[in-house]
Amino acid sequence: MDILNSSSYSIHKTYSEKMKGLTEKKVTEEELIKKAKRPEKEAMKLHPYYKGKMQTVPKCSIWGFDAFSVWYTPGVAAPCLAIKEDKEQVYEHTNKSNIIAVVSDGTRVLGLGDIGPEAAMPVMEGKSLLFKYLGGVDAVPLCLNTKDPEDIIRTVKLIQPSFGGINLEDISKPKCYKVLEALRNDPEVEIPVFHDDAQGTGTVVLAGVLGALKFVGKELDQAKIAMLGVGAANTRTAYLLIAAGADPNNIIMCDSKGILNDKRQDVIAQKEYDPFKYDLAHKTNKDDISGDFGDATKGADVVISAARSKPGTIKEEWISHMAKDSIVFACANPLPEIWPWDAKDAGAKVVGTGRSDFPNQINNSLGFPAIFRGALDVHAKTITDEMCIAAAHALVEVAEKNGLKEDYVIPKMSETEVYLLEATRVGMKAIEQGIARNEMEEEELYKIVSEKIKYARNLTDLLMETNYIKPRI
Amino acid sequence: MDILNSSSYSIHKTYSEKMKGLTEKKVTEEELIKKAKRPEKEAMKLHPYYKGKMQTVPKCSIWGFDAFSVWYTPGVAAPCLAIKEDKEQVYEHTNKSNIIAVVSDGTRVLGLGDIGPEAAMPVMEGKSLLFKYLGGVDAVPLCLNTKDPEDIIRTVKLIQPSFGGINLEDISKPKCYKVLEALRNDPEVEIPVFHDDAQGTGTVVLAGVLGALKFVGKELDQAKIAMLGVGAANTRTAYLLIAAGADPNNIIMCDSKGILNDKRQDVIAQKEYDPFKYDLAHKTNKDDISGDFGDATKGADVVISAARSKPGTIKEEWISHMAKDSIVFACANPLPEIWPWDAKDAGAKVVGTGRSDFPNQINNSLGFPAIFRGALDVHAKTITDEMCIAAAHALVEVAEKNGLKEDYVIPKMSETEVYLLEATRVGMKAIEQGIARNEMEEEELYKIVSEKIKYARNLTDLLMETNYIKPRI
Repeated sequence: MDILNSSSYSIHKTYSEKMKGLTEKKVTEEELIKKAKRPEKEAMKLHPYYKGKMQTVPKCSIWGFDAFSVWYTPGVAAPCLAIKEDKEQVYEHTNKSNIIAVVSDGTRVLGLGDIGPEAAMPVMEGKSLLFKYLGGVDAVPLCLNTKDPEDIIRTVKLIQPSFGGINLEDISKPKCYKVLEALRNDPEVEIPVFHDDAQGTGTVVLAGVLGALKFVGKELDQAKIAMLGVGAANTRTAYLLIAAGADPNNIIMCDSKGILNDKRQDVIAQKEYDPFKYDLAHKTNKDDISGDFGDATKGADVVISAARSKPGTIKEEWISHMAKDSIVFACANPLPEIWPWDAKDAGAKVVGTGRSDFPNQINNSLGFPAIFRGALDVHAKTITDEMCIAAAHALVEVAEKNGLKEDYVIPKMSETEVYLLEATRVGMKAIEQGIARNEMEEEELYKIVSEKIKYARNLTDLLMETNYIKPRI
Repeated sequence: MDILNSSSYSIHKTYSEKMKGLTEKKVTEEELIKKAKRPEKEAMKLHPYYKGKMQTVPKCSIWGFDAFSVWYTPGVAAPCLAIKEDKEQVYEHTNKSNIIAVVSDGTRVLGLGDIGPEAAMPVMEGKSLLFKYLGGVDAVPLCLNTKDPEDIIRTVKLIQPSFGGINLEDISKPKCYKVLEALRNDPEVEIPVFHDDAQGTGTVVLAGVLGALKFVGKELDQAKIAMLGVGAANTRTAYLLIAAGADPNNIIMCDSKGILNDKRQDVIAQKEYDPFKYDLAHKTNKDDISGDFGDATKGADVVISAARSKPGTIKEEWISHMAKDSIVFACANPLPEIWPWDAKDAGAKVVGTGRSDFPNQINNSLGFPAIFRGALDVHAKTITDEMCIAAAHALVEVAEKNGLKEDYVIPKMSETEVYLLEATRVGMKAIEQGIARNEMEEEELYKIVSEKIKYARNLTDLLMETNYIKPRI
């Protein structure tokens, strides 16, 4: 958080003019700093007050004490034996079709780095809260006391009978790739394993790019895309962009050492360690240009940055030499790589960040809850790139329906309809791809996902109204 | 279930006379068979109707979408860093103090044997339901795809950061001993690990024995005790009886091969495989008698059986040569080793079974929910025998307060006050033993456990009244 004391904050200056079109409120940098600190203060007060974000409650009737002779011994023996006969029956007799584990080793939590499994728990509980509230998905935080990828892989395989899916979270790179690939390619793993920091974020960035391109009237397959940062998020985003129709020749990626190309000895040397970086160095950047990110952005239609939480990381001059109607997504949290008003001043047409208080938020809560909702309801065996792309298209469809604008190229987290359409499209794509165990018509799936998501929302409201969730202090 | 077709059921006979004092309703053996089957039919109908017994719901306020900036990024970073600085803070900022995992490999589920982890899920979900409804404890079923004790041990150690306790369940013998001992003796394990089939059942049997002895006016340290079955339950029960004051010289244990004594070559040969059996063979049976269970029961004050779910396993003549005012606990499920009316006819004064429809049920739901409630609320590092004995004494205290009777030597599952007193006594014992991280006065602890248990009950009622839990069909 030392970023908050850096020079970019030191000048008191009114941004009212620059923020026009971004927010109607007049803000100063000082106010922004204060604002950024407020949730942390609230969090330190409210976390010990509630002592946890999620609890378990019954979903079956307890009509009397004799109910336990049905839910437990002796009655429970019958469903047990039915599952013993046919393992797939576990989806009928248990919560498997609605519960996932959020698995982390705490080695790369938010922007905080390797803080350990205990310290990662508040984040994983928060994730579980989002899974339920936005997607109606029951999620259990599982923070593991290890840094060894083999331990993570083995644990996921061992707990598989109890869950309908696994969401990997905040695992350091490149371990996270290894874990994800190993689990996705293991024929013994029969449930979807998803890495939200990569696939989830990639899905939402793709949606932002597609919405923005649509708004400015450009096509993905023609767009020149400059990407800053080659971490888990941008790596997966690059693959998703390509799978969605972007021309890899038109993508230029850049890390802290400069533009990625075939000749970068450090990338070749790390081929084993980070095979995806090597692969992307080969696939992207047709002309094998080198240089810094300023060279990458020349003539680019789109900038996607998932790099350093420090405004000024992307220079205004780099934005100014982009193509006409340029698009900038500066996604670092809590502070973007360039302030939106600076990007606008430099000529960008559409600007998005990771912040909820700025327009066009790249919020990965728009992805994972509905992606899992759809995958679970059709009992998908995995979550494919195509399912993620279907999710991104659903986000664009909702934004388009509501009217694309400069400051609205992607829906907001508060728009419930997003999750309903997105989950449905994800599930239907799984059925189309033949990886769903539970096939159905689109209308039926829409009804199911709608009921489950609305149930979670309404139930939360009920608990608050009746004080089973205490009012905040 | 072939037991239901066995000869003991073939004669249609009215037991009205024999059941006097046991139940006021006239029952026939045929009715009992029908009754035993009814929960299974209900279970096969209701399990697919509800598709799971537990769900997750928020326990923190979501006052608006900006709540997520407190519960998730950016605000959540502050509690994460607080825990990074001091790991114990995880109890303040997360649900750790109220959540446990129910861990099983599905190798010895109820009386069904090794049915596998998927088929074990309905039982573990049922257990989680009981944990919450009776103890206010959030519990997550974790059925593991392995039969290797090392896998279970390793997994529990890996998931430790996410839970305040571990309940081992339905793991085959002697693996279950190995797993429990390894975890309890591991200095890296800082949360209570409990094996319900052993410690939990042992606690409730001990309570039954203590209540019955008090009713007939005998003392534990004088009582002669004959035990049938040397599985996990009776093994732990024997140790608990001794720890509670029983004289090991007065205990005689018997397995399918006969009475346990120092000279049994099979027990000596299996010393490594089942060290507890070997140890008990040495400790118990002062006069080193041998023979069958009929020899063990001669002059005994108490019979405790956890053996075979088949009436007739214990013969009436064996009961008839017990001491005056004899006590019989025939705990096999779903059918006891001797029908209560037969035991009564043979001269037993107090008879208990595992069945909820007979008096004096040895129901381990009387144990684990409150034991964990107490252990969690004081942040106990382990669950000691002394804590289990305190739990048993609390059960007796409630039964005594309500008036000990021939058919009421142990409280019923439906008596809420039981859990409140029991959890309090367990927690206070942990404090007394210096293994609690969170010390407090008895009155304060009673208030905390009461609030949590009543919250769970009332919340379930609310969900049913408002149809968030659908009415049963």
